[in-house]
Amino acid sequence: MSPGPRHTDAGEDARVARTRADVGRAALEVLTQEDWDAVTHARVAEKAGYSKTTLYTHWPSKVDLVAIALDTIGDLPHHDRTGDLRTDLIGELVLFRTAVRDMRLDRVLLAMAQSASVEQMARVREDFNRRGQRLVRDSLAEAFSGARLEAAVSMISGVVACPTIMFGELPDDDVIAAAVDIVLAASDQ
Amino acid sequence: MSPGPRHTDAGEDARVARTRADVGRAALEVLTQEDWDAVTHARVAEKAGYSKTTLYTHWPSKVDLVAIALDTIGDLPHHDRTGDLRTDLIGELVLFRTAVRDMRLDRVLLAMAQSASVEQMARVREDFNRRGQRLVRDSLAEAFSGARLEAAVSMISGVVACPTIMFGELPDDDVIAAAVDIVLAASDQ
Repeated sequence: MSPGPRHTDAGEDARVARTRADVGRAALEVLTQEDWDAVTHARVAEKAGYSKTTLYTHWPSKVDLVAIALDTIGDLPHHDRTGDLRTDLIGELVLFRTAVRDMRLDRVLLAMAQSASVEQMARVREDFNRRGQRLVRDSLAEAFSGARLEAAVSMISGVVACPTIMFGELPDDDVIAAAVDIVLAASDQ
Repeated sequence: MSPGPRHTDAGEDARVARTRADVGRAALEVLTQEDWDAVTHARVAEKAGYSKTTLYTHWPSKVDLVAIALDTIGDLPHHDRTGDLRTDLIGELVLFRTAVRDMRLDRVLLAMAQSASVEQMARVREDFNRRGQRLVRDSLAEAFSGARLEAAVSMISGVVACPTIMFGELPDDDVIAAAVDIVLAASDQ
């Protein structure tokens, strides 16, 4: 037989992992379907089916709850690169728009920005947003470098992010295509 | 002598206006120097030097407090247009960057997005952001129209807004200039 303590630890680890997954999913649902203010230990505990005490024990602060919520998102869907720069950028922006609409990625972005004064959340945001922008950055790096690359990455992200954050609106297909064409008209190639 | 009731009303109006201005300033300070979660009736009342009861009477909800906070911002500083499109766009983006850094305009944008599910705040945000983007939009309308204009406005706004909201960073001068040059390279003129 395997040693008792190891066996017990493995069982405990599995239980903690399951609790973490359940609570993370519940917290993400509250954050994206309701809002930031709704993310309380009481509300998330109720939704996840655990006690408030369990939540406070493992995730004492609100930022802890938001951090495990973001963990459950995992990798965002990305466009499969075709090698054609225009097609890849448009495909990626359309997926970004879909994620805002269907996964309420805008509320996720806001929650991260909201709590970024906490060091732990600043790291989560940095990592999440770098991964989110990677395909756009890698694609644009074929045509731009230096300050022009930084500008192009922000501008391409901005065509979806700005109307979303500023007006709660999403860009039409023709606006997305126009943005990509404006950037590519200035490319080095 | 002027009629008593009218005199009293005018005195009352002036008192309410002064209270509103004091409370709005205090709420804006709490929002921009601390954060969204700090904007409570207790905290704002303490900072403004009024009773919580007074605040609850006039501004019963948190959104009411945030709305009068935004009112006290008034008009954002704008670049004086020179008529040279490149100079005007760069000047306006530099002012936008200054407002993020010095007035913590990023926290104002977040607070508005945060509470936009409330109809009252959606209107405040719409109005505030339209005014904020007006000079950029009017300038770009000299060179773009239709979907290309919408794309260009979001892209130019995005060069400051995206790094701010996504990474808590502000663009350097050369990134701002590069963004303006990329957009103008694609202009209709």
